[in-house]
Amino acid sequence: MEKYFEKNASDSLHEECGVFGIYDLDGEDVAGTIYYGLFALQHRGQESAGIAVSDTNGPKNNVSVIKDMGLVNEVFSKDNLSTLHGDIGVGHVRYSTAGESTRENAQPMVINYVKGTLGLAHNGNLVNANELRQYLSETGAIFQSTIDTEPIAYLIARERLHSATVEQAVNNACDKLQGAFSLVVMSPRKLIAARDPHGFKPLVIGKRGRSYIFTSETAALDTIGAEFVRDVRPGETVWVTPDGELHSDMSRAIPEEKQARCIFEYIYFARLDSYIDGRSVYDARIKAGRFLAQDSPVDADLVVGVPESGNAAAMGYALESGIPYGTAFVKNSYVGRTFIKPGQKSRESSVRVKLNVLREAVKGKRVIMIDDSIVRGTTSDRIVGMLKEAGASEVHVRISSPPFLWPCYFGTDIPVREQLIAYNHSIDEIRKIIGADTLAYLSIDRLREMVDGLSICDGCFTGKYPVKPPEEDIRGSYEK
Amino acid sequence: MEKYFEKNASDSLHEECGVFGIYDLDGEDVAGTIYYGLFALQHRGQESAGIAVSDTNGPKNNVSVIKDMGLVNEVFSKDNLSTLHGDIGVGHVRYSTAGESTRENAQPMVINYVKGTLGLAHNGNLVNANELRQYLSETGAIFQSTIDTEPIAYLIARERLHSATVEQAVNNACDKLQGAFSLVVMSPRKLIAARDPHGFKPLVIGKRGRSYIFTSETAALDTIGAEFVRDVRPGETVWVTPDGELHSDMSRAIPEEKQARCIFEYIYFARLDSYIDGRSVYDARIKAGRFLAQDSPVDADLVVGVPESGNAAAMGYALESGIPYGTAFVKNSYVGRTFIKPGQKSRESSVRVKLNVLREAVKGKRVIMIDDSIVRGTTSDRIVGMLKEAGASEVHVRISSPPFLWPCYFGTDIPVREQLIAYNHSIDEIRKIIGADTLAYLSIDRLREMVDGLSICDGCFTGKYPVKPPEEDIRGSYEK
Amino acid sequence: MEKYFEKNASDSLHEECGVFGIYDLDGEDVAGTIYYGLFALQHRGQESAGIAVSDTNGPKNNVSVIKDMGLVNEVFSKDNLSTLHGDIGVGHVRYSTAGESTRENAQPMVINYVKGTLGLAHNGNLVNANELRQYLSETGAIFQSTIDTEPIAYLIARERLHSATVEQAVNNACDKLQGAFSLVVMSPRKLIAARDPHGFKPLVIGKRGRSYIFTSETAALDTIGAEFVRDVRPGETVWVTPDGELHSDMSRAIPEEKQARCIFEYIYFARLDSYIDGRSVYDARIKAGRFLAQDSPVDADLVVGVPESGNAAAMGYALESGIPYGTAFVKNSYVGRTFIKPGQKSRESSVRVKLNVLREAVKGKRVIMIDDSIVRGTTSDRIVGMLKEAGASEVHVRISSPPFLWPCYFGTDIPVREQLIAYNHSIDEIRKIIGADTLAYLSIDRLREMVDGLSICDGCFTGKYPVKPPEEDIRGSYEK
Amino acid sequence: MEKYFEKNASDSLHEECGVFGIYDLDGEDVAGTIYYGLFALQHRGQESAGIAVSDTNGPKNNVSVIKDMGLVNEVFSKDNLSTLHGDIGVGHVRYSTAGESTRENAQPMVINYVKGTLGLAHNGNLVNANELRQYLSETGAIFQSTIDTEPIAYLIARERLHSATVEQAVNNACDKLQGAFSLVVMSPRKLIAARDPHGFKPLVIGKRGRSYIFTSETAALDTIGAEFVRDVRPGETVWVTPDGELHSDMSRAIPEEKQARCIFEYIYFARLDSYIDGRSVYDARIKAGRFLAQDSPVDADLVVGVPESGNAAAMGYALESGIPYGTAFVKNSYVGRTFIKPGQKSRESSVRVKLNVLREAVKGKRVIMIDDSIVRGTTSDRIVGMLKEAGASEVHVRISSPPFLWPCYFGTDIPVREQLIAYNHSIDEIRKIIGADTLAYLSIDRLREMVDGLSICDGCFTGKYPVKPPEEDIRGSYEK
Repeated sequence: MEKYFEKNASDSLHEECGVFGIYDLDGEDVAGTIYYGLFALQHRGQESAGIAVSDTNGPKNNVSVIKDMGLVNEVFSKDNLSTLHGDIGVGHVRYSTAGESTRENAQPMVINYVKGTLGLAHNGNLVNANELRQYLSETGAIFQSTIDTEPIAYLIARERLHSATVEQAVNNACDKLQGAFSLVVMSPRKLIAARDPHGFKPLVIGKRGRSYIFTSETAALDTIGAEFVRDVRPGETVWVTPDGELHSDMSRAIPEEKQARCIFEYIYFARLDSYIDGRSVYDARIKAGRFLAQDSPVDADLVVGVPESGNAAAMGYALESGIPYGTAFVKNSYVGRTFIKPGQKSRESSVRVKLNVLREAVKGKRVIMIDDSIVRGTTSDRIVGMLKEAGASEVHVRISSPPFLWPCYFGTDIPVREQLIAYNHSIDEIRKIIGADTLAYLSIDRLREMVDGLSICDGCFTGKYPVKPPEEDIRGSYEK
Repeated sequence: MEKYFEKNASDSLHEECGVFGIYDLDGEDVAGTIYYGLFALQHRGQESAGIAVSDTNGPKNNVSVIKDMGLVNEVFSKDNLSTLHGDIGVGHVRYSTAGESTRENAQPMVINYVKGTLGLAHNGNLVNANELRQYLSETGAIFQSTIDTEPIAYLIARERLHSATVEQAVNNACDKLQGAFSLVVMSPRKLIAARDPHGFKPLVIGKRGRSYIFTSETAALDTIGAEFVRDVRPGETVWVTPDGELHSDMSRAIPEEKQARCIFEYIYFARLDSYIDGRSVYDARIKAGRFLAQDSPVDADLVVGVPESGNAAAMGYALESGIPYGTAFVKNSYVGRTFIKPGQKSRESSVRVKLNVLREAVKGKRVIMIDDSIVRGTTSDRIVGMLKEAGASEVHVRISSPPFLWPCYFGTDIPVREQLIAYNHSIDEIRKIIGADTLAYLSIDRLREMVDGLSICDGCFTGKYPVKPPEEDIRGSYEK
Repeated sequence: MEKYFEKNASDSLHEECGVFGIYDLDGEDVAGTIYYGLFALQHRGQESAGIAVSDTNGPKNNVSVIKDMGLVNEVFSKDNLSTLHGDIGVGHVRYSTAGESTRENAQPMVINYVKGTLGLAHNGNLVNANELRQYLSETGAIFQSTIDTEPIAYLIARERLHSATVEQAVNNACDKLQGAFSLVVMSPRKLIAARDPHGFKPLVIGKRGRSYIFTSETAALDTIGAEFVRDVRPGETVWVTPDGELHSDMSRAIPEEKQARCIFEYIYFARLDSYIDGRSVYDARIKAGRFLAQDSPVDADLVVGVPESGNAAAMGYALESGIPYGTAFVKNSYVGRTFIKPGQKSRESSVRVKLNVLREAVKGKRVIMIDDSIVRGTTSDRIVGMLKEAGASEVHVRISSPPFLWPCYFGTDIPVREQLIAYNHSIDEIRKIIGADTLAYLSIDRLREMVDGLSICDGCFTGKYPVKPPEEDIRGSYEK
Repeated sequence: MEKYFEKNASDSLHEECGVFGIYDLDGEDVAGTIYYGLFALQHRGQESAGIAVSDTNGPKNNVSVIKDMGLVNEVFSKDNLSTLHGDIGVGHVRYSTAGESTRENAQPMVINYVKGTLGLAHNGNLVNANELRQYLSETGAIFQSTIDTEPIAYLIARERLHSATVEQAVNNACDKLQGAFSLVVMSPRKLIAARDPHGFKPLVIGKRGRSYIFTSETAALDTIGAEFVRDVRPGETVWVTPDGELHSDMSRAIPEEKQARCIFEYIYFARLDSYIDGRSVYDARIKAGRFLAQDSPVDADLVVGVPESGNAAAMGYALESGIPYGTAFVKNSYVGRTFIKPGQKSRESSVRVKLNVLREAVKGKRVIMIDDSIVRGTTSDRIVGMLKEAGASEVHVRISSPPFLWPCYFGTDIPVREQLIAYNHSIDEIRKIIGADTLAYLSIDRLREMVDGLSICDGCFTGKYPVKPPEEDIRGSYEK
């Protein structure tokens, strides 16, 4: 995917994020563990990072929070981490999208409400956020940020006024939310997690000793040495009480065939070593590569992936086709967010700084190059060109997802349609633009097969959304 | 190599660095290009970075320099880069070793001497640095740093007093240096490079339009869109004059069979996409993997590399053996220099944060794991353990270099002997310590074969050094 | 006052702040002017600083805000100021008190509410803040800070639901506030200011060309070259509309004899060059010195002030007594917030770093030393000691305010009673403790005379408060 | 002086600095004490600050140094100060002049030479620096900075080759220096100080317990609680040995009538509470004021000083004339180095931000305004204007020094002649330009009287220099 190469001019505020909550029943500090967990989730958001902790044995509004713009290692230092004391806590990393990159939008959000203090961390995009903000404003709410977490917090606070427990208030509030949400909430004495009924975004339960963890990906559990217990089910609210019990409320659940996991988590967004709803991300990508080999075979000498996200599909292609897998690129891992482009000559393209071709590996070879997506096409163009310059005799491009044609309303950062190369061009036109000898995409039929028949959301490829998009912005068709 | 996992407690001051010099004959600013070039060399040194530029049409002592501790993207910003004007310049990145990580040691070194100003960037370790410092002190020199560049600068300044040209002064000064040096010097009107007679460290010549470049690796030439011209030859001094001519002086050269390229550049240190003295680093690593497959075969289901440096040798092993190549690890590229270890439980090992195993890829499989070296053994121990925990039925470790047994006096950062696992243990003992089912190293005989017969230095494996080590520190044997 | 020497361990959250709002009717950017204005108010708060601006011709929720912990010159840079575009804006500086020095509490507060966006800057302490927070929580409010500005914003938002205009909503909201408030509010098209009926804290109106300014002190008007129009009257709400008209609502006003200006603004807090409610701060302090000379005369050679705040009263004393005024101290103006105390010997007292005595000026002399207050007594002790060590034959201390005996509920940062030297000791005991030859305070009767008969609040000296203190914390007596 | 208002465009590199050295014979760490001392000297230099320490019982080259651009409180933090261990050390603050504000020029300079390590801190300008650099270059020296300390260090290193002791080497080296120098040198086992024979710049000896201190001003001794022992005599070299003895070498001394203290130290540069060569700076400024009252009397109501440096002379004038002393200005002490000027309207002059007039104090009054100098005249113009706007009926300006007419070669930062108002205009013209009713300067005859007959340098007023200026830059006349 071209994310590494071009910052999208986003048309809406997306919330691709990572969340991490933990309750240590032995009463030990959790900030260090959350820090480790956020490192494991850093790929889900590089814009801001934050940790809020509380002492379940202390006063009810005693939350310490540190959050700021930047990577986990930029926001946290030995000094400031050492000031975060508490046995319950939530952490968050947020994706960098255009327009609203402000400190006010960093999470976790910490609020004082009628029953003390809550800390909230949220992943996913609501489709009724505007309606909720309007409704809440008209009943006296004030908003200090533009993130969906804030109306959610209001709903919880209001539900709490006539709910017996905070978990019930969270569950009732979630009933009013439409769209994608994977939410972790820390109350003075409980840790709560909730997932939307469609299960757009991942959310898992882990355990380490007597500590419970709710987090976005299983990779974060591995990192802190916790066991995977199970996924939070679509529509489920779970919570841990001070006695160490894990509770569940499934009242918001919908039939399994209505569920709609974001297929793009498997294709690109999640870590290769994570498992989502029982499916290995690695396995899904290997399968995507195998399907490409079956559906769009080509005779060649070498299969390579565009690093890092194209590598697993390339291995799948190699395994299926018998063509050797190799490495064609050296990626410069030092080129990050802060890379600047001094007034350089055009020949010093920034792609060259980030990626170089291994001439020795590709010269004279027919190369199959696997990438996970083509967005605007400009980067693919340059990479194919680099392979040819390095002596590749043929370059066959295979994409491990269908063409992007529609917007995503649930959290994936896709440019406006006019910038999508597949919206404006046929596949053969795209092939010519990027300079490939052949080009093929994964077919839409194969997506569900990738995840062994799970119900998925493929709206960005089909325009068919499982939830009605915001009225003011219906660009796809909605099937009830 | 374990570098990513444990910072060595170094016993001496090593100078593993990257150098980059450019002279733009069209008179355009070069700072932006040097910035790009240093990014391409960042793997050679993460401690400090610096750029010095000068205007060849300006006054003779008009050098601007910015250098500081940190990565290239930490030291340079859009603001400070824009203050560096000049058509000739040198840049430097320096490796982080213990003890002398001070700002005073950052390069390039800029000096005023009898004929104006020089900017110097240097890679490699001299073995007679102490003698030189002693001699220079006794004739009135003062030293403001502990790097070898400073005595080199003094020698050049003194030679200049009775040399006709600055290039001759550089060449004469180099004649007094013993050990490893790849040096780039910017004078008010000329760019000069010199390599030691043994050719320990790489140094190449590139060209872009009318600009000449002298730099450590060909990858830096690719990054800036320059053509590779040739290597600077061992013992050669080259220089570019304002008329755009490239000149050479070979008076310091020694017979080719006496030359001694650092084999560890091919094994680990250089970038996979670089070429050193006519040999592809990628190709050398592929060969190392093939040799291991030939010399130490084993029946297995999967060949994997310890990322990133083990991957190419793993591919070579796979190609030679026919066993499929795969990926067993997910490396967290966000874990860098600034990662801290909050008072975490032991189960939150920092290895887990940096590296996770792909259970899906290895479970139930017999795995051949390729790494480039074992230094202390502690990291190998943990990685093998992670593979077994993830379900690998067997783990066969193959190392693409011989066991480390001796110190390096020329710039490679190897711990004291007592910390080297191979110094204290037999190979079978090491195998048990790291928990592998089988363990094999590349044999010393294969090293020269890896680079098609080039004369190499393998002192760290054999204790036989091409140049006499410092008298006060003879731990190996020296053959005249 | 000892503020410069010892950071108080405050028992409650005080809001001694400076506010600045401006509406440029010519449509020019106001951020630079606010920056200048905040510099003039920096003495009112060194903890945090912020500026929010909006374009009255742009969309209704288009506010840019920059705020952070630190001094004005630490929070703002050329770069970030240049991003603040808008012809209407508010700025704020906040005093550093213990406990709640968090970024979340920095102002201005920017909120989205039912009618767009508001920016609020507030000075003063409410006595019914807890009741308001409780009431608002019980009707579904959530709080993200601990400052009084947040409940005020809620009240405005709720009043706005059934008010015809934003200024009416502000005025109605203010009717529900008890205690001290000087408030500046920026709505999408109007600039509004409101002062509490007692007029505890200053608030003035200025004009420059067609721009209107509402700010804490006239000194800020001088700094930006604006004319002083008049004070905002106690209980008044004023606002500027896009047609450039200044409007007023006096419906919250109370009889003048019930008004209660904070006398400590005249004694210490305000700038010497400011005018509050028609009285010159300079003149008030000169008078205080004259009263001390009249009421507590003593034969001496020299009158000196403890810098800076004691100087004006010392001049008044000198003028009245005919004893020459002089300078006895050199204050080190570089010692600021960031001064650290490395593990030094006790003889390196931090007072010595900040203040040194001019031996030449005091040796052999009988010195009258004027300070504005004695809080704990420790600093006075050291300063008197320094004068004696320097050779002063006698030291007569005169304090230009009565002894501190009671807490302040309206914004002045006074330590808990147990730490107040005057609460525990008679004046003669204090004299002995600080080592003075004689000691006298200004009498309570003189306070109102200092300000030519204005109604004042002298609760910190008398325990008689014009507004009922919070129920849970009645340490003084309240007279209806 | 206008320094606070306008940064001079300096025509040469001046070294107005503060130095501080200490040797703790009890073996305790000295970094904290140096930090305190540098705070007391901060007025002597705000560009860079540095501390170097060493352990006299440790190895001979074990010096730790921290130095950087910025104020003392910007360069040093609790963290970095705590890393500086050693019982001997030197510190330095450097004045900000145009052109060479680079980190390479920060002091102390730490060098390794034939006998170990030296730390050097230096104040003053050499007139033969260029000759020394030329000579040293021609014998093989290289220079890494542009400060005079570097050739001094070379001379010491070379003298050391044939001197019995380091103090003798320092003394011999000083014999080759021409111009102003007050030097403190730390060797592995000794602390050494040297002052030039003319005694241009101050240098004093202090003692605290068994610790000896050599520093620029007595105020630094007061700050750390040390006793003043005596001045280092012009031409003297002093040193402390490990046995705690203070030694002296007077071989470089010249007759007292040839000595030439910088009179500007008394007028402006030194702290009011310091004593230089037996004279109180405060007393000298009081005298200057008295002389002005005697020589240029005028009938008026009020005497005021331009803060801070004009205040003492104003008090002297008041004492002599019997006209009351008062305060006419409020200076904003928060406006410092980092104040920026956002694109403001002209009416927001930066003078207004820094200085405001106390209308209440001056309205209707005839004011005598004392300043220490007029350089370009622009600031005086604005300040006189502010007084008149505020209602002063007359403004009589008195300057406590003669007109600046000549450059200074010894360390005072005076603009080029063309920018000096007194070079281009008669006194009456200046009076008109600045808008004063009358204007008078202190006469040259009074300067020596100010310091009770000490031999002084008044070259900046007279063009007669005690040492021959650099040949290439003779703008004044030199009398042998």
